[in-house]
Amino acid sequence: MKQAYPNTCGILVSDEVAKEYGPAIFSAYDDPNQPIELLIVDGDKALTSDQTDRARVALLSVDVMGSSTRSYDDPKLKHFSEIVLRAPNLEWLQICASGVDRALYSALHQKGVRLTNAAGVNAASVAQTALAGMLALVRNVPAWIEAQKQQKWQPLRGPLVPDDLSERRAVVVGTGAIGRSIGQALRALGMHVTGVRRTQGDLPEFSALRTFEELDQVLPNADWLILACPLTSTTHHLIDARRLSLLSPAAYLVNVARGSVIHEPSLIDALFARRLAGAYLDVFESEPLPETSPLWDMQGVLISSHSAGSFARHQQRLLALFIKNLAQFCVDLPLFNETVPTA
Amino acid sequence: MKQAYPNTCGILVSDEVAKEYGPAIFSAYDDPNQPIELLIVDGDKALTSDQTDRARVALLSVDVMGSSTRSYDDPKLKHFSEIVLRAPNLEWLQICASGVDRALYSALHQKGVRLTNAAGVNAASVAQTALAGMLALVRNVPAWIEAQKQQKWQPLRGPLVPDDLSERRAVVVGTGAIGRSIGQALRALGMHVTGVRRTQGDLPEFSALRTFEELDQVLPNADWLILACPLTSTTHHLIDARRLSLLSPAAYLVNVARGSVIHEPSLIDALFARRLAGAYLDVFESEPLPETSPLWDMQGVLISSHSAGSFARHQQRLLALFIKNLAQFCVDLPLFNETVPTA
Repeated sequence: MKQAYPNTCGILVSDEVAKEYGPAIFSAYDDPNQPIELLIVDGDKALTSDQTDRARVALLSVDVMGSSTRSYDDPKLKHFSEIVLRAPNLEWLQICASGVDRALYSALHQKGVRLTNAAGVNAASVAQTALAGMLALVRNVPAWIEAQKQQKWQPLRGPLVPDDLSERRAVVVGTGAIGRSIGQALRALGMHVTGVRRTQGDLPEFSALRTFEELDQVLPNADWLILACPLTSTTHHLIDARRLSLLSPAAYLVNVARGSVIHEPSLIDALFARRLAGAYLDVFESEPLPETSPLWDMQGVLISSHSAGSFARHQQRLLALFIKNLAQFCVDLPLFNETVPTA
Repeated sequence: MKQAYPNTCGILVSDEVAKEYGPAIFSAYDDPNQPIELLIVDGDKALTSDQTDRARVALLSVDVMGSSTRSYDDPKLKHFSEIVLRAPNLEWLQICASGVDRALYSALHQKGVRLTNAAGVNAASVAQTALAGMLALVRNVPAWIEAQKQQKWQPLRGPLVPDDLSERRAVVVGTGAIGRSIGQALRALGMHVTGVRRTQGDLPEFSALRTFEELDQVLPNADWLILACPLTSTTHHLIDARRLSLLSPAAYLVNVARGSVIHEPSLIDALFARRLAGAYLDVFESEPLPETSPLWDMQGVLISSHSAGSFARHQQRLLALFIKNLAQFCVDLPLFNETVPTA
């Protein structure tokens, strides 16, 4: 079946994308010998097998991802996944997120479908959310909100006085687009920022770089440990009981990566024992975070519900990346953000 | 009485400062011909008139300011002020805050006492608090906290999806240490930042600079208007009904300056009419903000109780400045942060 429609670039897109970005997609590549065709996935309507055959590209857009979590597929995603998995001539899937840890991605990868993620696209959103969490903890924003609700004037002085980030030491695990955005912001706030990654080197967004092998050496002096890495065999349970015990009891932990980068029961133990000052957590080993998790109401713990990568202009910025990539694809140039499944 | 003790540098300090920083203060200047003497103000105990006569310098430290607000004097501040106002040979007062708008400061200034503020000292704290408020608004941190309280998994997607700051335009009024710290942080987050000040020029912390006369021209394109200026005759009610109406209804207002930089009733009108998306306010025309103020529970309004300049390491950083200044004072060199009362 391969090469049955060599001259048409059929693209599986949602009806929402077709409507809002159709003209922009067509503008990516204008060659009558290889016309772009939008194959529109509308709600739960089926495509004809002829349409599915013509699909060489698929865009898993923000609306298709919908309210999916790592362990739950939105009906729109389910329907889209079924079509994508059945498309015999699919060559490339553009994903709207940075994480490449869904079963769909492994299945496509095994079939030889190329994957590109949206790493740079949501980097600013994730980095700014990490920073929102850090500043909420260090400036005690929950106390503002509580006092405001009670219409109570409560200056944060005396025993309530909050700290700030200046001159504090941050360790950022992961030096991709998200980690670098975090590093750049924290340095601008006067922090000393060490980036941790696989290889040695220098990056302007960090005061220093260390390898994963050197992580243990930098933990004892970290005021903030920030996880912004993909979930891989190296990072799975990277932060376990032993590494948590290397941190200062005054240190804070931030996770905007994946829940399983932390061994969650050990984190809960450390927080209970006050061997850690607090944590801002966007991701968890099991999502949705079970109602019974003690993390929900532990002192010094701030939680958001896997929302760091959600931002209003996500679709707009994803489409900008997709259109740039489509132009590359149509003339056989390398794709931006090509990646492989990590789970 | 002037020059009665020309060879002693008597310094009025709190008992807390004497205890924690005494040795450090003595180390500022070591000359047997002009020995430093600490004149300790302990609780509400009176000083002898001889001691008061010997005071040439006074340090209004963080513990003395206590829980004072712009309109309320903590008993410790009251007692300290009385002593300071009676000291006939006082030449210089170091203040722990940046605002120079208390009656005490005008009274001392009229008597010829030099004033230095702590502008650079709390700049990082104020700037980081402004950023905490902005990120709390744009990433909807109040919704995280509310969901967490209810132990409810609530990803911010669909209608709840929050915006981010990238590529947005900020206008920062005031380009002192605080405004520059804010500018630097926002530029690192990918914002376009215009600074507004009296004079033309360039500063690396801003994408562009405008004068107060040009403020009206930059307001219509501002996504965020951030007030970080001193309260002066120029900035009093700078943001009034007319200027609020120049802002986009999608714009946010941030005030970490002084309440009276905004005409508060006009702000309340604009927020009620949804002619403004929201506001983060640390300061108010009347403090404590009256319980009856509609600001407490307006949609999109985040409030902190004049806490932006409060931070745990305030005393430590104030003393570093004071000791640097004392070394200058003892050898008749210019003082850092010398200023005049603004109210």
